[in-house]
Amino acid sequence: MKRQYLVPLLALLVLVLGGVFAAGACGDDDGGNGDGNGNGVSSDLDDIAAARGLTPEDMKHALQQFVPPGEYDDYVMFASGGHSGQVFVIGMPSMRILKVIAAFTPEPWQGYGYGADWGDTVLAGGNPEGVELTWGDTHHPALSETAGDYDGRWLYVNDRANGRVAMVDLQDMRTKQVLAIPNIQTSHGGLFVTPDSEYAMITSKFPMPWPPGTYAGSDEYADVYRGASAWLKIDQTNGRINMDESFQLELPPYTQDLADAGKLVSAGWGFFGSFNTELSVGADFDEALSEPIGDPMEAGASRNNFDYLHLINWKAAEQLIADGKYEMIGGQRVIRIETAVEEGILYLIPEPKSPHGIDVSPTGRYLVVSGKLDPHVTIFDFEKVEAAIAAEDFEGFDDYGIPILNYDSVLAAQVEVGAGPLHTQFDSKGHGYTSLFLESAVAKFTLGDDVVTGGEAPFELVDKISVHYNIGHLATAEGDTVTPDDNYLVALNKWSIDRFAPIGPLHPQNFQLIDLVDGEGPMDLIADMPIGIGEPHYVQIMKADKLSALELYAAGTDALTMDTHPEAIDAGEEKVERDGNNVTVWMTAVRSHFTPDIVRVKEGDNVTLHITNIEQTRDATHGFAIAHYNIQASLEPGEVATFEFVADKSGAYNFYCTEFCSALHLEMAGWFLVEPSDAVAALD
Amino acid sequence: MKRQYLVPLLALLVLVLGGVFAAGACGDDDGGNGDGNGNGVSSDLDDIAAARGLTPEDMKHALQQFVPPGEYDDYVMFASGGHSGQVFVIGMPSMRILKVIAAFTPEPWQGYGYGADWGDTVLAGGNPEGVELTWGDTHHPALSETAGDYDGRWLYVNDRANGRVAMVDLQDMRTKQVLAIPNIQTSHGGLFVTPDSEYAMITSKFPMPWPPGTYAGSDEYADVYRGASAWLKIDQTNGRINMDESFQLELPPYTQDLADAGKLVSAGWGFFGSFNTELSVGADFDEALSEPIGDPMEAGASRNNFDYLHLINWKAAEQLIADGKYEMIGGQRVIRIETAVEEGILYLIPEPKSPHGIDVSPTGRYLVVSGKLDPHVTIFDFEKVEAAIAAEDFEGFDDYGIPILNYDSVLAAQVEVGAGPLHTQFDSKGHGYTSLFLESAVAKFTLGDDVVTGGEAPFELVDKISVHYNIGHLATAEGDTVTPDDNYLVALNKWSIDRFAPIGPLHPQNFQLIDLVDGEGPMDLIADMPIGIGEPHYVQIMKADKLSALELYAAGTDALTMDTHPEAIDAGEEKVERDGNNVTVWMTAVRSHFTPDIVRVKEGDNVTLHITNIEQTRDATHGFAIAHYNIQASLEPGEVATFEFVADKSGAYNFYCTEFCSALHLEMAGWFLVEPSDAVAALD
Repeated sequence: MKRQYLVPLLALLVLVLGGVFAAGACGDDDGGNGDGNGNGVSSDLDDIAAARGLTPEDMKHALQQFVPPGEYDDYVMFASGGHSGQVFVIGMPSMRILKVIAAFTPEPWQGYGYGADWGDTVLAGGNPEGVELTWGDTHHPALSETAGDYDGRWLYVNDRANGRVAMVDLQDMRTKQVLAIPNIQTSHGGLFVTPDSEYAMITSKFPMPWPPGTYAGSDEYADVYRGASAWLKIDQTNGRINMDESFQLELPPYTQDLADAGKLVSAGWGFFGSFNTELSVGADFDEALSEPIGDPMEAGASRNNFDYLHLINWKAAEQLIADGKYEMIGGQRVIRIETAVEEGILYLIPEPKSPHGIDVSPTGRYLVVSGKLDPHVTIFDFEKVEAAIAAEDFEGFDDYGIPILNYDSVLAAQVEVGAGPLHTQFDSKGHGYTSLFLESAVAKFTLGDDVVTGGEAPFELVDKISVHYNIGHLATAEGDTVTPDDNYLVALNKWSIDRFAPIGPLHPQNFQLIDLVDGEGPMDLIADMPIGIGEPHYVQIMKADKLSALELYAAGTDALTMDTHPEAIDAGEEKVERDGNNVTVWMTAVRSHFTPDIVRVKEGDNVTLHITNIEQTRDATHGFAIAHYNIQASLEPGEVATFEFVADKSGAYNFYCTEFCSALHLEMAGWFLVEPSDAVAALD
Repeated sequence: MKRQYLVPLLALLVLVLGGVFAAGACGDDDGGNGDGNGNGVSSDLDDIAAARGLTPEDMKHALQQFVPPGEYDDYVMFASGGHSGQVFVIGMPSMRILKVIAAFTPEPWQGYGYGADWGDTVLAGGNPEGVELTWGDTHHPALSETAGDYDGRWLYVNDRANGRVAMVDLQDMRTKQVLAIPNIQTSHGGLFVTPDSEYAMITSKFPMPWPPGTYAGSDEYADVYRGASAWLKIDQTNGRINMDESFQLELPPYTQDLADAGKLVSAGWGFFGSFNTELSVGADFDEALSEPIGDPMEAGASRNNFDYLHLINWKAAEQLIADGKYEMIGGQRVIRIETAVEEGILYLIPEPKSPHGIDVSPTGRYLVVSGKLDPHVTIFDFEKVEAAIAAEDFEGFDDYGIPILNYDSVLAAQVEVGAGPLHTQFDSKGHGYTSLFLESAVAKFTLGDDVVTGGEAPFELVDKISVHYNIGHLATAEGDTVTPDDNYLVALNKWSIDRFAPIGPLHPQNFQLIDLVDGEGPMDLIADMPIGIGEPHYVQIMKADKLSALELYAAGTDALTMDTHPEAIDAGEEKVERDGNNVTVWMTAVRSHFTPDIVRVKEGDNVTLHITNIEQTRDATHGFAIAHYNIQASLEPGEVATFEFVADKSGAYNFYCTEFCSALHLEMAGWFLVEPSDAVAALD
């Protein structure tokens, strides 16, 4: 894909000519250095551009993206990792990965799930009963909010594969909770937080037999399988989810999909779509004939022209819970469909057609449904929704008795945007931006309210840009808040095909940074960013100055509780205690040695190691690993970690600092000597 | 760290003025678009630079780094992941991560170690006897070579923590072997390949008691503990390591460190340094007094002014093996020290002082030792080494009887480069570049042979550039080959401190891209790249056009063997076979369904699933996961994978495609129905 040299060469020629004239007319010729002489700089830049085959557009984009060495990005983007089970922290506009946060999958660099107490405890807490899980499929990261704006304190993300939720503490970018959500087996609708982080909201994707523990074949789908909308209570002091204070609503088995929280005029409500009101369970298979019986779900779930958008009044639901109007199911307080209907807190609106995204505009007024198999975004007006509910303006009830609001009464508009609309985000100037999977494009439309004059405006398509290729979600900067920014949009493309050098059959995904030109447009593609470490499904983009992460831990910190670790020690307090076959060691780590650095045990001993990193210097991290014992920890300055294991292999095992810490890092090592149970002497 | 606005504003003013004059004198005013009018482009660029606070230097660097959307990087950099246990593939100069290759650590996005046969087989193959390892500490990636140049076929990397080696197939960027190396417990010296990929060479780091299975406390260190230099035979047809055809040399317990292979004039030889000829085992600990006894290893291993560089004639060693002059130890053919000395294939040279790197210059003539605790690079001349060996010019013998070559006889020169030299790379113009950990800099020196005239040149320091901060290794493009390039150097810095937005106590590492200006210098820092997903220790940088990775697999491929999978099927050949409590399913995956999509088994059944991705379209990857069964696979087009597990949990479990594949990706799902053993009916 070589670029034409003609235009850059011509530009160079004109520049040089212009420089000659201008230099004669205007000022110094500094010999090409460029300081103070624009033409000198230009010729350097054009030399580089010519040598590298960059067009003038490329040159502009380079300047739009570049963050100079030592400078910081304006934004930080939190991305899910998809089936890597992690969360990525990416600086924007440079599009550089700053951190991978281990969430559902063990990760040794961070010492998560490799013997250190904090991580092992968190991961074990996320196992459903009787199940050990060592991965997750992270989809939707949700930053904590205050008054509808990101506040930089906490982040929540779901495990789509196993119906779980993780909580990340943004003080230290570590996962502090992994929780299995009862009554939910897989989950996709969320996470989203309510505007003051009262709840993190997650909805089941495929339903499961209720109550949990029931076995029911797919033939009992309509009767026995149920979904759930889970409202997870967030502790306002530390961001932890409190399962005892959480509650759920029972849902029909429609395979709920995406979700969003209401805000401002729609505050107190939550919204989620669905795509399988057909209740298709797939083709099934005739084993005698070795062939499918019916239609696969891709056809079976696509028959109906409309599925259902669900609306839940969570504020009212909270009150019902307080009033005891629930049943205990799976250990959670669950409002049954019947109760929800009776109490007027659950409604449906028809939405075309197996849609994907439901996104709430910044004012909270417009509910934008992205049609997936319908080429429109379908936009509902929450003011009309409230009126329809008050007037009981229903077009009917579904098979589970839930009222269906009159579609025409609540519709604001439809805008034909293109093939395969999946997800919509917004700017602050009255625009929606919708991803078009099939068309590989982003469509921009106006939302029907003129944010400048406050009056009406048409709902219409105004711009479109190609992406590469097959976009899933997208995000605008500060996009899920009440005040999105107008500068950047990131397209999260699923297929990269030929965008990057060939690196094998498993292709990276492709994030594309797009300039919104202050909301005025036209949209302009700045840069491609390959994602070769997972499959992000969604991101949230926050101004970087909202970060308030720690530089290090206070001396003696337990990273899980963020309090003093009970086994923290200072230099000089190292010790070894023995009690039968139990050996406990209090060890320190500091540049460049561990103390003790020789640990003697007998085969079969129960070993407990408490290691304190006694550094209080920024970035003075030490690692700790024991050869062949599958133990690896990362100990940040001030941190304390505990390891408990059985010395089940005799021998002399090296342990060492895994994180390069000092000039004598390689000498920061010791010996873990495990004497065989029959004390065989060394061979001479 | 805000930049001064003064110079860019001034430059803008002059540019505008110059543009006004030049436009009047020279040509069109195109309204700022820039095509064909250099001054229009310049003013656009300066507008952007002013808005973003970029200096003229920043602007140049932006253009040097930027790779436009859809364009490819010129180079691909393979980096170790450190204690993440992975390998990263990074495009250069854009410094974008194209792929993370799972090597020693299970990784679910790639479906490595989560139930699919290929990955489970590879990982299990890497477990030493009686040990299960789920992570590794990758340090040194080594690309396969032909005639001393990278050839893009295979990559090898070591696990420093557990003495293991992984082989990556660059056709599909997947790990195909993980091997425990007998007689080695931890390893750091290597990997390096010999110039025609005959062998991959790995040396132990800390020694271990010999023979394997011996227990010996650290008091027997000098007598019983030994290191090993392992020469792993590479199968020339497929890059696999053949352990039966491999061999080792016994080494004294000096804690061998880095290594390099000879080439051209030193072809047939391997070299590795050491840093603990003092045989320090650490301070040890008095449990009664709760205090250390002696000096920690950082002091104990640093006493001697010289440690030993080891030289091995591997070509001659090969012949000794063929002649039967070895002992079987740990199942490997091992040449004992005594034999190696007798046969004249093992020598030592004193090297100052606890050095780190040993690097062979592109002609093979100079052996450059980076002093670590000595501020020099110490350069040996291989021609003098050969002469000294022939003349038996020894200054003595070590405690193990190995001859020590006369230091002064083999020394070419020392160059004082600065504080904490760790590692050296080269360009093709007679320069060495050495990383200075303590000084946070890169030093450039001349190698003493004028590559232009062919005559002598001084060995002297010629340039230095600051890095941020505390650099470990570095790499030049094509740097370990016989023909390095002269354009880029990457500094692999260990501490980032304040270089990036604060993201918690665990800081990223920092790769810095440096312009070598065609080997002429002065060196110029282009860009910072945060590494937030592990701790790379070394990289190799290859021209991207040497890649010849597959776009997809041939239909029915087993990715482990790269042959047809015995259970591959075509569309229409799906079936289910039952034999008692064994259930085997042959399943296909294609956009957008699995067939069968309902699988019925009984609790306790042994389930075997063979899944074929029958796509033959580039990037048409499907995933496969079963909720709560901890199974996750990535199936690239054409690929077949097998899963074997016990259906030990009754219930109705959703399975689905995890890799976004199509508009109806969300409908690509099915049901895994596990009937309880007592067939309890669903509750009504």
